[in-house]
Amino acid sequence: MAQQIVDRRDQDFLLHEVMNVEALSKTEKFADFNKKTIDMIVTEARNLAVNELLPANKIADVENGHPEGVRLENGAVKVPPSFHRPYKLICEGEWIAMTDNPEHGGQGMPNTVATACRELFSGANMAMMMYPGLSHGAGKIIEEFGTPIQKMLFLKKLYNGKWGGTMCLTEPEAGSNVGALTTTAKPNGDGTYSISGSKIFISGGDSDLVENVIHPVLARIEGAPEGTKGISLFLVPKIWVNEDGSLGEPNDVAITGVEEKMGIHGSCTCSITFGGKGKCRGTLIGEANKGMKAMFLMMNEARLGVGMQGYSLGSASYMNAANYARERVQGPNLLKAIFDKAAPSVPIIQHPDVKRMLINMKAYVDGMRALIYFISNCFDQVAVATDETVKAKYQGLIEILTPVCKAYCTDKGFDVCTTGVQIYGGYGFCSEFPQGQLMRDCKITSIYEGTNGIQAMDLLGRKLGMNKGKPMMDLLFEINTKIKEAKEVGLSDMAGKVEAAVNKFGEIAMLMGKTAMSDKLMDAFAEAVPFQEAAGDVIMAWLHIWRATIASKALSQNVKKKDEPFYQGQVKTAQYFVDQILPVTLGKMEAIKNMTATIMEIPEEAFMM
Amino acid sequence: MAQQIVDRRDQDFLLHEVMNVEALSKTEKFADFNKKTIDMIVTEARNLAVNELLPANKIADVENGHPEGVRLENGAVKVPPSFHRPYKLICEGEWIAMTDNPEHGGQGMPNTVATACRELFSGANMAMMMYPGLSHGAGKIIEEFGTPIQKMLFLKKLYNGKWGGTMCLTEPEAGSNVGALTTTAKPNGDGTYSISGSKIFISGGDSDLVENVIHPVLARIEGAPEGTKGISLFLVPKIWVNEDGSLGEPNDVAITGVEEKMGIHGSCTCSITFGGKGKCRGTLIGEANKGMKAMFLMMNEARLGVGMQGYSLGSASYMNAANYARERVQGPNLLKAIFDKAAPSVPIIQHPDVKRMLINMKAYVDGMRALIYFISNCFDQVAVATDETVKAKYQGLIEILTPVCKAYCTDKGFDVCTTGVQIYGGYGFCSEFPQGQLMRDCKITSIYEGTNGIQAMDLLGRKLGMNKGKPMMDLLFEINTKIKEAKEVGLSDMAGKVEAAVNKFGEIAMLMGKTAMSDKLMDAFAEAVPFQEAAGDVIMAWLHIWRATIASKALSQNVKKKDEPFYQGQVKTAQYFVDQILPVTLGKMEAIKNMTATIMEIPEEAFMM
Repeated sequence: MAQQIVDRRDQDFLLHEVMNVEALSKTEKFADFNKKTIDMIVTEARNLAVNELLPANKIADVENGHPEGVRLENGAVKVPPSFHRPYKLICEGEWIAMTDNPEHGGQGMPNTVATACRELFSGANMAMMMYPGLSHGAGKIIEEFGTPIQKMLFLKKLYNGKWGGTMCLTEPEAGSNVGALTTTAKPNGDGTYSISGSKIFISGGDSDLVENVIHPVLARIEGAPEGTKGISLFLVPKIWVNEDGSLGEPNDVAITGVEEKMGIHGSCTCSITFGGKGKCRGTLIGEANKGMKAMFLMMNEARLGVGMQGYSLGSASYMNAANYARERVQGPNLLKAIFDKAAPSVPIIQHPDVKRMLINMKAYVDGMRALIYFISNCFDQVAVATDETVKAKYQGLIEILTPVCKAYCTDKGFDVCTTGVQIYGGYGFCSEFPQGQLMRDCKITSIYEGTNGIQAMDLLGRKLGMNKGKPMMDLLFEINTKIKEAKEVGLSDMAGKVEAAVNKFGEIAMLMGKTAMSDKLMDAFAEAVPFQEAAGDVIMAWLHIWRATIASKALSQNVKKKDEPFYQGQVKTAQYFVDQILPVTLGKMEAIKNMTATIMEIPEEAFMM
Repeated sequence: MAQQIVDRRDQDFLLHEVMNVEALSKTEKFADFNKKTIDMIVTEARNLAVNELLPANKIADVENGHPEGVRLENGAVKVPPSFHRPYKLICEGEWIAMTDNPEHGGQGMPNTVATACRELFSGANMAMMMYPGLSHGAGKIIEEFGTPIQKMLFLKKLYNGKWGGTMCLTEPEAGSNVGALTTTAKPNGDGTYSISGSKIFISGGDSDLVENVIHPVLARIEGAPEGTKGISLFLVPKIWVNEDGSLGEPNDVAITGVEEKMGIHGSCTCSITFGGKGKCRGTLIGEANKGMKAMFLMMNEARLGVGMQGYSLGSASYMNAANYARERVQGPNLLKAIFDKAAPSVPIIQHPDVKRMLINMKAYVDGMRALIYFISNCFDQVAVATDETVKAKYQGLIEILTPVCKAYCTDKGFDVCTTGVQIYGGYGFCSEFPQGQLMRDCKITSIYEGTNGIQAMDLLGRKLGMNKGKPMMDLLFEINTKIKEAKEVGLSDMAGKVEAAVNKFGEIAMLMGKTAMSDKLMDAFAEAVPFQEAAGDVIMAWLHIWRATIASKALSQNVKKKDEPFYQGQVKTAQYFVDQILPVTLGKMEAIKNMTATIMEIPEEAFMM
């Protein structure tokens, strides 16, 4: 069977049966997107992903300097040669700005539909997709905060992929602590600024896929306050763009190095010096000293995108593992071997532990996919809402789910990839097979765009108490609605177990919120990551009973014979999650209740004498 | 601070305060090994590891064909050039056969002391240490099962590293299912056999570190029964060894390929064809058709060795992370930042989530080290026991702990390495820093020498019911003894929690054992890995309260001021394990109690339509 990236049947299930995306076509905004159109779009994305993006992925999995890899030559980055064709197809198919305003070159597609395409692209070739992904992010900032001239000069070319974009935050001494950055901006008197400083870890910092690169750069205007309150955002083009849109002279932007990494080899990670010769020009975007606000817009989009990356590699690894387990014949059926020493070898999918690994992978992959589609659907609900309360509700759900999506989908995506290596046995460790690369590529996702520790702090310190806790209350309400529905279709046992877990989670959230506001806040923040994990688990449980409820209804009606295993799989997977994973979640919550000062009290010297 | 591999203070604690290794010097066998000698040996091993093995490790972390890596040239393997010097020092220092009989060139060292050396070597350069490790394993088989002539011809040269050894089990269609192998052996009439077949995944299959390579090869003598009962073991030298010990003509052993892998690049993984020209000779070792018995001796040693590998990379990653977290300054103290917006940045070790990650790594690393030392000490107790019952008890403990050590220390070692990447942030993903290599290298350990799924089956299917459950009862007795001691020194709270977990584990073990013997055995085996994990967790809890009991006693006496943080660290880490990890273990055991047919019942088609 050809290598797959995402289970198409499950995409259709989520789009049409769970999220009911077609209902959006009743609104003026999304009137063009009926079921037939949606299915055609997903099929097209799938073909592009499998036939073009995927083959290039493995070819480019080589170290810098390799002829098939990233090369820094004379200060310019050449991306893997195999990326040129799929990149061109991504641009030509107008896949970069799927959800954006058609006025600026976007496709105006529902976010949920775009998500079905994005998971295919990212799962097929995460490294390649980072180039257009960052271009889109830079474009989005300009769309939101740019002056009319900035929009005119940059926006369409970022959205159509002629130019590339980046996100220049990190400096050697300012990683997670962005406020410590030292890059400066000095007004030139002509509306431009002189930018001076060095940035590291800049994905897509340069490339030969595009004519020009537009760098959004965080810098401090001379005399601005210290910390994040004195940070402004500038647009710094690699090649200056004249007022008529034509390209001017090269700007003073130097690529000083490209990192050698554990994975995503095809995505160049650049060190960049701006203004090394004192001649780097940029223009302010948004208000002075309000750069963090603009950057956060981009970061929130990027965080969800990174959650998607982590998840989608897990999905690809799971698909490979399921195929492999069906094809690899090794060892007899355990039960049969007891009675018949000559029992024949069987496909390893029949062995209990392999089946356990597969259902475990499926439980996380299906759960994460549902989470990502749910968040995407929230964006669509915001877009079509006419009532401000409704809009605010969905906006709040996006806010609270963003750190969970980023952290949980990258942690669990990596775990799924690790299991995907294990199912292949020794072959999983061999570079000839795809599982190792997926695992290595996935590792970065728990780190960049704010480490998962930062996400957990965001959840606990900002999102939990936001608007007096309304987003959290709304989330719990959504969950409880689905628990009720599950009970109505006869899934009372599993619904009851999810209910108990949700109630306990509510208690824990109160405890954490209270402690984080007390003099014991350090102890609460030491539990931030376990709390975020528990939140993710409970959310998975909710999405699984939601899935099971719909599947259970379908099975009780006259479902097509060939669809039965799919729906049975939904119910069994929910049962597995509730019986086998949720008890561990309850244990994690007990651990959080045990919160003491132990972690903060252990002497630093105890970590090594 | 120089890069460290293992916390020396903790080694000393385990050797002298926990395991009381010096007591062995009261026996005739180990009379030479008093405290001073032991400490000298460990110091020497440490210097060799840090100064010689460690630097070579990173240099050799390159793909096959790279001048610094493994190269297959004209059918011969060249190992990384940087390995030659440390390998020579390992041989010269007589570190290969530390615990073996001096009569055959061994050092006759207590196993526990050798373990303290091995963890340093393996943590410093796992890939390089595989060459002498496999030579030792091959030697051990010959020591145990060889004829006097085989011993004379091969043993000393394997133990002194002049020759290398391998372990030729796996074939393309016979991985986990060894009984399916197709390599054949045909008697030549002169006492030798003609060997014919192909093996894959042969570590150290060839190398230019040694003059000759001795391959123990599993093969089926023509006409022997199918399955594992018809398998015999042969010694197949790369270059024939004449009866006077001189080298004869090259044997018909061809290296047909070297795998490209995710990690342990410096360790060549060979495909070997024996008898491609019909001229491969070997001699039978042990009885015909009893090859699995001999191979199991080697595999059991190898499984403990692999547990050590997984753990030791975790230890190295933890040491690096602790150092990094003390040196890396980023972001203000959370508590101080509330009151003072200009609070200075602090070393990240002060941030709650970083400290949580460190104490988590420490909890697993310390626990695993204690497990490995305990098992080593069991070997020493077997060696000095005069009473057969005592000997049998320790032998049983080794048997039951071997699969747990292999699976748990490799899974958790990998998790620790993953956290070690996370603490470095973006730098963790960059090849310039050591954390990524440790994680990649570690991944193989959950796969080879029997996947961790196989280990869990061994625990559930063989070890749990062995001798009517005596080893498991002995283990529980050991644990309960330490619970009692902990209560006596005032650690009643944590001891009580461990007791509750152990009692629950006892119940679960009964349930699992019973179900595995019933018609529901497939459902039980679907829980084999979670059961193995729960066993490992409970064992960690036991070892932590044991540590805490000794530390607590030390603190109540007049311990040196400079030692206080170490002992406090022991108590705090035990508290952390009991409060933060053990509740999750209880959840895992609840999940096992929920065992149903769900996993076996989910339709295979549900894994992808």
